Amino acid sequence: MITEPRIINIGAPLFADALAAQGATVLHVDWQPPGGGDAGLVAALAKLERPEVEAANQAAIERLLAARPVLIGMGIAGEVIPGMTSTTVLHAGPPIQWAQMSGPLRGAVIGGLLYEGLAQSEEEAAALAASGEIHFAPCHEHSAVGPMAGVVTASMPVFIVENRAADNRAYATVNEGLGKVLRYGAYAPEVIERLRWIGASFYPALREAIERSGGIDLQALIAQALHMGDECHNRNRAGTSLFIRAITPHLLAGSADRATVAQAFAFISGNDHFFLNLSMPAMKCSLDVAHNIPHSTLVTTMARNGTEFGIRVSGTGDRWFTGPAQQIRGLFFPGYSEADANPDIGDSAITETGGIGGFCMGNAPAIVGFVGGTAADALRYTLSMYDLTLAENPAFTLPALNFRGAPTGIDVRRVVESGVLPIINTGIAHREPGVGMVGAGLVHPPRACFEQALLALGAENLEPRTQNLEEEQRTKNRAQST
Amino acid sequence: MITEPRIINIGAPLFADALAAQGATVLHVDWQPPGGGDAGLVAALAKLERPEVEAANQAAIERLLAARPVLIGMGIAGEVIPGMTSTTVLHAGPPIQWAQMSGPLRGAVIGGLLYEGLAQSEEEAAALAASGEIHFAPCHEHSAVGPMAGVVTASMPVFIVENRAADNRAYATVNEGLGKVLRYGAYAPEVIERLRWIGASFYPALREAIERSGGIDLQALIAQALHMGDECHNRNRAGTSLFIRAITPHLLAGSADRATVAQAFAFISGNDHFFLNLSMPAMKCSLDVAHNIPHSTLVTTMARNGTEFGIRVSGTGDRWFTGPAQQIRGLFFPGYSEADANPDIGDSAITETGGIGGFCMGNAPAIVGFVGGTAADALRYTLSMYDLTLAENPAFTLPALNFRGAPTGIDVRRVVESGVLPIINTGIAHREPGVGMVGAGLVHPPRACFEQALLALGAENLEPRTQNLEEEQRTKNRAQST
Repeated sequence: MITEPRIINIGAPLFADALAAQGATVLHVDWQPPGGGDAGLVAALAKLERPEVEAANQAAIERLLAARPVLIGMGIAGEVIPGMTSTTVLHAGPPIQWAQMSGPLRGAVIGGLLYEGLAQSEEEAAALAASGEIHFAPCHEHSAVGPMAGVVTASMPVFIVENRAADNRAYATVNEGLGKVLRYGAYAPEVIERLRWIGASFYPALREAIERSGGIDLQALIAQALHMGDECHNRNRAGTSLFIRAITPHLLAGSADRATVAQAFAFISGNDHFFLNLSMPAMKCSLDVAHNIPHSTLVTTMARNGTEFGIRVSGTGDRWFTGPAQQIRGLFFPGYSEADANPDIGDSAITETGGIGGFCMGNAPAIVGFVGGTAADALRYTLSMYDLTLAENPAFTLPALNFRGAPTGIDVRRVVESGVLPIINTGIAHREPGVGMVGAGLVHPPRACFEQALLALGAENLEPRTQNLEEEQRTKNRAQST
Repeated sequence: MITEPRIINIGAPLFADALAAQGATVLHVDWQPPGGGDAGLVAALAKLERPEVEAANQAAIERLLAARPVLIGMGIAGEVIPGMTSTTVLHAGPPIQWAQMSGPLRGAVIGGLLYEGLAQSEEEAAALAASGEIHFAPCHEHSAVGPMAGVVTASMPVFIVENRAADNRAYATVNEGLGKVLRYGAYAPEVIERLRWIGASFYPALREAIERSGGIDLQALIAQALHMGDECHNRNRAGTSLFIRAITPHLLAGSADRATVAQAFAFISGNDHFFLNLSMPAMKCSLDVAHNIPHSTLVTTMARNGTEFGIRVSGTGDRWFTGPAQQIRGLFFPGYSEADANPDIGDSAITETGGIGGFCMGNAPAIVGFVGGTAADALRYTLSMYDLTLAENPAFTLPALNFRGAPTGIDVRRVVESGVLPIINTGIAHREPGVGMVGAGLVHPPRACFEQALLALGAENLEPRTQNLEEEQRTKNRAQST
């Protein structure tokens, strides 16, 4: 039997294009050599394919999957967050000083200093921030996380989330809603007044309700929200609804008067993003226990300060690997465009780091109305994240993927090897201080973060390999091709 | 160029099987002649493919899609439902008398008579029900709908849902929760006590809250719930959550004391099916305005009394077309099996009749954990319903299908022509009175309902066709094959 030749082209599309131009049917495989063929990266990848690394990653992912985040209470940041002082300003992302801060982070710092009474005007606040008298530090270095600017100052109320599997804790402020809010860099009087109301009225009532509840199981709420079309980063309508159902009976049973309960209910229910400030510390306390495991290539932090994107990796401890914060592709609110957008900002990528958020977009197709794209795009993003991750989380199942576990635990090696970057969906802040949110969309981390981390991991003092590396790689290739 | 023959077999699989046995590659198309080849059905189908029918269906579907169901209040059944008397017992499904009733419907009738004080014991109630002194009538004939047994008696509180596009109304009782409840045929003292608490405490508080709200837009809540993994028949967790968010501020602002508000909140929040008794009357008042349009082949009712399944069609008015209620395939609660199951019962198929429920299963994959099957099965069911329906509802979009409108408005012609039956997902009642729910699953109506309806529509006094029917059919076939 005579048939036409069947052609597969791998790698450079040049040959496929030439054949296609002659009318041939060509299947093109979009392949690149690991690490883009960079010799240093390839060497590091080869060195890190070894039992010590697998064992370290196994230990790290087991701790991550075993985490049981529970909302156990609230407190005042300066009293409960380790290392906070009255002049500490925590912020999102990797370390940064005032001179390098982008507009929305500067705006939120100004708002935080006004809220603390450390300054009486925008000008005073900016001068104080530039003076060296304020101690700026990443939330992530104080067991905390904050969306967008992520500013936390000493007298702000924070949620306390405990990982019941390891007794470690994480902290986050109360989500203020959309529009002109501190986390988007707004600091108008209405913003400060809302923060004061949260501290004086909302916080005491909610703290009492959380304490009366005996703890609210955030793992269970996230699991249910994932079955209700949330991905728990940019879509939190279900999570917020389920939190309302969990907390309202305890608000009603508490000592707050009826008007205060009604105001608290209206505040939570008026903001579908309320649950974000609970899903974030839930992921933070889950990932922190997987951090600092020698040789592990698990990414434990992805965070942005509006100027730089930074990651931290379990095996390299507290070192940050950074690159420039990227522009977000997405949908803008009426009257705004890309020209208004600040680069990527916020600790909210802790959700993707923990396996939810953008990693679960395919399970939350309604989100494309907020961040752009189609339901099929969202599904493709989720499926591609399985190539980067160490596990599928049996606690977070995705009905749209017939209850497959969420792709969980980014492996630096797989990111560099595949050239595929983690997907993050996120809000877009105006680039000027004082404005606020202008849209939402999708973004990737800069590739350089992962390449630097891989090289640092490869440079570690690992024992020499006992097997011939080339032979091992050939064996692996044969296994993959069967 | 020489290639192997490419074989397509249509219809009877015999030829395909014979060729496959010889090693040939055969594509088999599972085709049947319209109406299974029955001459009477084929003649009726041919007669009903005409402009008068298309115009009637267009008018009917426009009214259905234009409906704006709003929860405007509550009232006592005997005071607000047209035609109710103190000895009326409304029930689910087509008309039925005591002697023909299945176990769960009998149990609910007994419970209703005990609740009304018309009987003091099970025996007295059964004797009264059999005496001829009770007027049994379908909910559907009194602008009402009830899940499962669907029993409504004169002093029960009911929701009042108004279609603001046409000012007609529909009514439904309050969903009691799961387990031992009246609608599943239970009538133990705890069941009657819960009904009394609903009437004495829950109803006054909720009625006031609904009135204070100025009306709750059920179309908007259903649209949002469909974006949150509900299909609004057997999965109502999102709808219930959204209703809680809509009503609680008005409960708090009303005159009910704090303990009553707390009890009301706990009752609603304790039952993820609460919203079913709102999605059902929302669909009922939307479909009622599409009923009674001469020549329309739109199905306006699908309902089951536990013994028979009945449908009504717009063009044939108040006539029921019935067949035996079917056994449900699904998942059973621990300790129960198919042997315990009553045949299909309840008016809840009004959701599928209106284009939601089982018709939107593909958009609510988490439901397969409750009714069985896989997410892919659920998607296939939804896609197949587009073949039976007259429209895609722009108000109810399905994110999982990239925001395609829900398949809405069953056309009797398409059901008979294709041989595909509407899919319904539903609860399973124990076959004995007094037990309750034992599982949930999937079911189809009996084919006979649609065949009878088609023949009745075909027998109508339609003007003779102006065109040659065979020629028209050939033209249509040519158009379809291009």
